[in-house]
Amino acid sequence: MNRQWLYAKQPQGKIGADTFQWTETAIPVPKDGEALVRTRMLSLDPANRAWMMGKTYRDALQPGQVMSGFAIGEVVESRASGLAKGDIVEGDWGWQDYAAVSGRRLTRRTTDAPLEMLIGPLSITGLTAYFGLLDVGRPKPGDTVLVSAAAGAVGTMVGQIGKLVGCRVVGTAGGQDKCDWLVRDLGFDAAVDYKAGGVRRALAAACPDGIDVYFDNTGGVVLDAALSLMNLRGRIACCGNVSQYDVDKPAPGPMAVPGLVVTKRLRLEGFIVMDFFDRRAEAEQRLARWVADGKIKAVVDVVDGLEKAPEALIGLFGGKNRGKMAVRVWP
Amino acid sequence: MNRQWLYAKQPQGKIGADTFQWTETAIPVPKDGEALVRTRMLSLDPANRAWMMGKTYRDALQPGQVMSGFAIGEVVESRASGLAKGDIVEGDWGWQDYAAVSGRRLTRRTTDAPLEMLIGPLSITGLTAYFGLLDVGRPKPGDTVLVSAAAGAVGTMVGQIGKLVGCRVVGTAGGQDKCDWLVRDLGFDAAVDYKAGGVRRALAAACPDGIDVYFDNTGGVVLDAALSLMNLRGRIACCGNVSQYDVDKPAPGPMAVPGLVVTKRLRLEGFIVMDFFDRRAEAEQRLARWVADGKIKAVVDVVDGLEKAPEALIGLFGGKNRGKMAVRVWP
Repeated sequence: MNRQWLYAKQPQGKIGADTFQWTETAIPVPKDGEALVRTRMLSLDPANRAWMMGKTYRDALQPGQVMSGFAIGEVVESRASGLAKGDIVEGDWGWQDYAAVSGRRLTRRTTDAPLEMLIGPLSITGLTAYFGLLDVGRPKPGDTVLVSAAAGAVGTMVGQIGKLVGCRVVGTAGGQDKCDWLVRDLGFDAAVDYKAGGVRRALAAACPDGIDVYFDNTGGVVLDAALSLMNLRGRIACCGNVSQYDVDKPAPGPMAVPGLVVTKRLRLEGFIVMDFFDRRAEAEQRLARWVADGKIKAVVDVVDGLEKAPEALIGLFGGKNRGKMAVRVWP
Repeated sequence: MNRQWLYAKQPQGKIGADTFQWTETAIPVPKDGEALVRTRMLSLDPANRAWMMGKTYRDALQPGQVMSGFAIGEVVESRASGLAKGDIVEGDWGWQDYAAVSGRRLTRRTTDAPLEMLIGPLSITGLTAYFGLLDVGRPKPGDTVLVSAAAGAVGTMVGQIGKLVGCRVVGTAGGQDKCDWLVRDLGFDAAVDYKAGGVRRALAAACPDGIDVYFDNTGGVVLDAALSLMNLRGRIACCGNVSQYDVDKPAPGPMAVPGLVVTKRLRLEGFIVMDFFDRRAEAEQRLARWVADGKIKAVVDVVDGLEKAPEALIGLFGGKNRGKMAVRVWP
């Protein structure tokens, strides 16, 4: 039996239980060139919601499809060259127990690392933080780095990598508890609760020397405030716009664009982690070493059971998670 | 006698005659290290208006000051080393016949070129087009380049340089006359009248292969439309925001920031021409050669008489000029 969550209908405003529909079908049979994969962990990401809004860097989700999402799985039968039973693979086969996937759309991962590592620091989330901060943001030692959604999967990694390369690191998160946790447990220099209001003033106090690099996961009020506090020739790594994904009516764009972009000579640059995959091995080695040496804490928030996936994604947009949110489907 | 235009008061909405005040004072006497400069040409630029709005890359204008502006002048008496009577110099001494200026704040220009060249293609405007397009926008042959305010000082140069480096060039301007002129006289491939409405649709038709480089002089509706038509990894050279300088209430920011910036991996980068002045000589030589070879038309719109300066700047914001707008103060 193959349990599946379908993408049932496009949400108006926030996603809810009725965005998804549970179904059970037969386990598929792999064709030549395909592997039958059994899902072990699902990666829950703000991008899951963005794909419902229209074409992004991939086609929009269509109602009736199996809900899309990155996952880690185990090959249980292979008709694909280079893949064998027992291999651990990564791919975007969505919210289901089993999928028959073309070998070309699967990436083999090490069997030496725990699944929490593969879905956390060594996942697309960890790589997004790594390449986005270091290659797009290009911080220099002593720079002030701001990251929004700092308690999330990407944010926790950005902050910790920022500290390792010698920066002052400030994060924004929803709620004082998360902010305290960022400073106490993850080594952030300061954190600002964006839900408490007065974001610009609080960020100005937390960034007395201005902001050199802003890693933007959210857009919205934090982007507005950051633009006004950026230093000359500051860099904004545009990674996501999560404040605008799960809403009915998007907020207006940032008033400081393009005015302050000109006068402060800012660079805003969007990126997608896949653009850097030719250097994936290098990044994974460095990240794995940092984790092994205790220099980076892997923060993974695991929910058990495929049936919990919608609830977990809804919780992600409610700010319930800390670090990477994942669903364990098959232990 | 030294005739001067003072900046009288901050405009609410559009600038008008009462933004400026005429006065006459004694000709200043240069101190040690200064040169007495007599103004020959004033450069009128959208930046003149931006400086009234607050701090930009320079301090805001303060009511009571001589109105600021770049100018070309002739040294009539020198107590500055390296400068002699008869030298042609450039600087920001503002709207007046005479100024005593520190030698460090003056740049000596060639006496071999006509003043129209020095205030036009070889001025900060020409250099802005050169560095902004080539270094910030980085077009490749075959790329589609869009430039807003294309009939203006910077736009006419951007379009012509874009053609010289092998691009398809599209401009926006106010009114069909200017658009026809851009295509007929300056070699643009297409031009869109932004005042006619339906800007996005018209630009989509004029840019069938999308936009690779957008040279943004205006912000506003053209920026909105351009963002939606940018190709993957497109570059936006943020040069100005002229649509928002002479208004009472600024328009909302571009909705596509940061959403489309992420999904299309766009780069928006602000710049100021002075950032590139270490390469000024190289750029001037190339621009002078292009003009001498008839590959670039120098479009300079000269008004005679210092007394006409306010009217001319008001006309600039009314879209009256073609190419570089300048005031001849002393023939």
